[in-house]
Amino acid sequence: MPQFMDVHTHMVGVTAEELAAAHQADVEIQGDEGVDFQHAWADPRTGHVFCLSEAPSADAVRRIHERTGHPADEVHEITVTA
Amino acid sequence: MPQFMDVHTHMVGVTAEELAAAHQADVEIQGDEGVDFQHAWADPRTGHVFCLSEAPSADAVRRIHERTGHPADEVHEITVTA
Repeated sequence: MPQFMDVHTHMVGVTAEELAAAHQADVEIQGDEGVDFQHAWADPRTGHVFCLSEAPSADAVRRIHERTGHPADEVHEITVTA
Repeated sequence: MPQFMDVHTHMVGVTAEELAAAHQADVEIQGDEGVDFQHAWADPRTGHVFCLSEAPSADAVRRIHERTGHPADEVHEITVTA
């Protein structure tokens, strides 16, 4: 399954509770698109959140994040790791 | 130890061999700054590379990447995860 890193850039001040709630909302409907969100890393100061997932496509990732109200600003398909 | 996600945005076409070599170069000198690079995820199509590390500071991460010839475009301190 392809792997993706999506990036949100406007989540300044996001709290642990808010990130957990956003992640949980994604996880609850991710099966509709065959997405598996694995981890989210946030920098509340810059407002950047990075989400790692496995999914059939970038659009599948986008659709889940859109439905839960926090659309991704970028979705990158990860094809090389180290 | 604080955790960081740094982002490179100009590595279009990076190969597995090139990413492995860049990561290895960082790992070889990371001890000079007390940095521990843990993982790198690359999208050769968009040229984005995301590096997760533990380090004393963002500047420590920046210095290692600068010395090995691939400066980071952004360094985000990760203080919230999900």
